[in-house]
Amino acid sequence: QVALLDIDICGPSIPKMMGLEGEQVHQSGSGWSPVYVEENLGVMSVGFLLSSPDDAVIWRGPKKNGLIKQFLRDVDWGDIDYLIVDTPPGTSDEHLSVVQYLSAAHVDGAVIITTPQEVSLQDVRKEINFCHKVKLPVIGVVENMSGFVCPKCKNESQIFPPTTGGAEKMCQNLNVSLLGKVPLDPQIGKSCDKGQSFLSEAPESPATLSYRNIIQRIQEYCDQHHFQEEKTL
Amino acid sequence: QVALLDIDICGPSIPKMMGLEGEQVHQSGSGWSPVYVEENLGVMSVGFLLSSPDDAVIWRGPKKNGLIKQFLRDVDWGDIDYLIVDTPPGTSDEHLSVVQYLSAAHVDGAVIITTPQEVSLQDVRKEINFCHKVKLPVIGVVENMSGFVCPKCKNESQIFPPTTGGAEKMCQNLNVSLLGKVPLDPQIGKSCDKGQSFLSEAPESPATLSYRNIIQRIQEYCDQHHFQEEKTL
Repeated sequence: QVALLDIDICGPSIPKMMGLEGEQVHQSGSGWSPVYVEENLGVMSVGFLLSSPDDAVIWRGPKKNGLIKQFLRDVDWGDIDYLIVDTPPGTSDEHLSVVQYLSAAHVDGAVIITTPQEVSLQDVRKEINFCHKVKLPVIGVVENMSGFVCPKCKNESQIFPPTTGGAEKMCQNLNVSLLGKVPLDPQIGKSCDKGQSFLSEAPESPATLSYRNIIQRIQEYCDQHHFQEEKTL
Repeated sequence: QVALLDIDICGPSIPKMMGLEGEQVHQSGSGWSPVYVEENLGVMSVGFLLSSPDDAVIWRGPKKNGLIKQFLRDVDWGDIDYLIVDTPPGTSDEHLSVVQYLSAAHVDGAVIITTPQEVSLQDVRKEINFCHKVKLPVIGVVENMSGFVCPKCKNESQIFPPTTGGAEKMCQNLNVSLLGKVPLDPQIGKSCDKGQSFLSEAPESPATLSYRNIIQRIQEYCDQHHFQEEKTL
């Protein structure tokens, strides 16, 4: 059982990417019901509360934090194995609030996404710095948009060049895990736009293999983390 | 004379992209002095206030707004023709504050950047919606990452496919101008990482031609806007 919580309040993309646009949140006796993609995958996003997908949520920090608190307190997630929280970029209200509100729950850690260029890595170093400051473990880093193979001539181009060594070098320097590199595949964008699962649509793509590997490594990390927590309890 | 103000407080990329990393802001009798790239281009960013480029600014909205106010009030920009404000994505504190603090200055308008996929266009529709709500004119939309030409076989790939017609269709539907499309060129990422001007480094690139066109269209818009404002005064 997996729950996916989108706390990008001003730019919620999860409903579209999960094929759930137009869905509404329902109130039940035990709170808000998430929207289910499949039986074992429930989703919550501010997108489900808007009357149109183009509506802007023009809210300052405190209002955003209030909704995040409601998402964590008032949604009846049921009995879940994983709660995945998707955040916007940055180190501000959304990040501080979710870490604070979940502090008693012993969050397993953060998965941090970057692209290969130094301009992105610089932001990611700030995010890692943030995790250290708030004592949130870093599960690892994923390098996205990691090279493109021309469908015609099979030549590989580094469209977002790793001028300073990419995520690999950064992870070595900061002593965090590199969970994997996901190559650019136009089908990824198409699947997101259509709300389809890229992993089902393109099961043979190198990007799919990379995603599967990354998921497995995260699962192993969480299993290990729980085992150690049980030992210390 | 151009001034560039970076109000992405938690992810300032302007110092690196302008080749100004390690520069510091100096206090003068008339306020803070911007950092100059060239004589006619002054820059201000929270990046100049950090002791290391990897330092995280872990601030909630009100503190970010306070710094934006300081940037607008306490920086001695000198006599400038253009003030360009670079914002993070979203429709929250930074955007509300800059529009509010500059409301008496009659801002010319917003230039909005997207990529071709629907997932990005959805966020951009929210930004356009925001501009309408706060009565900020929309100068136009730029489509970034708009196709990639393989350097080996010259075949063009839509790496971020415009599944719903891209920025062009969206601009038609919303009755806003499309300022141009910038193709993917690996040299752009390299120039940003090295703090060099892509326009000087790759003067013949189709992306450079596109940038030049876009700049010209923005200048024309601003000239027109000022002319009309003078007429109404």
